[in-house]
Amino acid sequence: MVDEYKLVIGVRKDLDMGKGKIAAQASHAAVNCALWAEKHDKKAFKHWESSGQKKVVIRLANKDELMRLKGESEILGLFTSVISDAGFTQVEPGSVTCIGIGPAEESIIDQITQKYPLL
Amino acid sequence: MVDEYKLVIGVRKDLDMGKGKIAAQASHAAVNCALWAEKHDKKAFKHWESSGQKKVVIRLANKDELMRLKGESEILGLFTSVISDAGFTQVEPGSVTCIGIGPAEESIIDQITQKYPLL
Repeated sequence: MVDEYKLVIGVRKDLDMGKGKIAAQASHAAVNCALWAEKHDKKAFKHWESSGQKKVVIRLANKDELMRLKGESEILGLFTSVISDAGFTQVEPGSVTCIGIGPAEESIIDQITQKYPLL
Repeated sequence: MVDEYKLVIGVRKDLDMGKGKIAAQASHAAVNCALWAEKHDKKAFKHWESSGQKKVVIRLANKDELMRLKGESEILGLFTSVISDAGFTQVEPGSVTCIGIGPAEESIIDQITQKYPLL
């Protein structure tokens, strides 16, 4: 059986961002991950794109949890994109808001992301 | 003065999607728009990417409003990506959830999107 590929986006819950803000921040992460994979991991990109660009959005408690997940992703060799907001609205300038991970094989990325609740 | 480039994502309000659902649907639209521009409108992509990938998320009342905006975008020659959800959760299978427009010059895209409220 072929493993599915997915992109995981982790969003900080503690910043209390609104729906539109979250959508924009998550989109930044997703675009960065997709463009990176298209250039540097064509196999993952192709599998992911042709199977519907699966995306899962999870909830992270705070910046510490986000940075820990970044570290765990890197140990597994997964690409990450950490998004900082310009901070004109809602959050402090430079605040880390979310992280994109992958796209990567589900069996690998799930090892570190599956324990988090969906947003 | 150089015109800024931005990508606009319009999200249907009437579906009452949760934050995570909206983030995933908006990310689909954003990724499609970014990948399209990278291939087919390199000038827009380059300007948009190098100036911070500006993204604006607006609120659309319903499917009619979304499809009207798609029509108006096409009249202006702007790329659009309409997202339909597989519908496993929250919405009916095949529901149109959001639209991505651009990236395009602000002075052009604003003509048809500026009247909508931010999400």
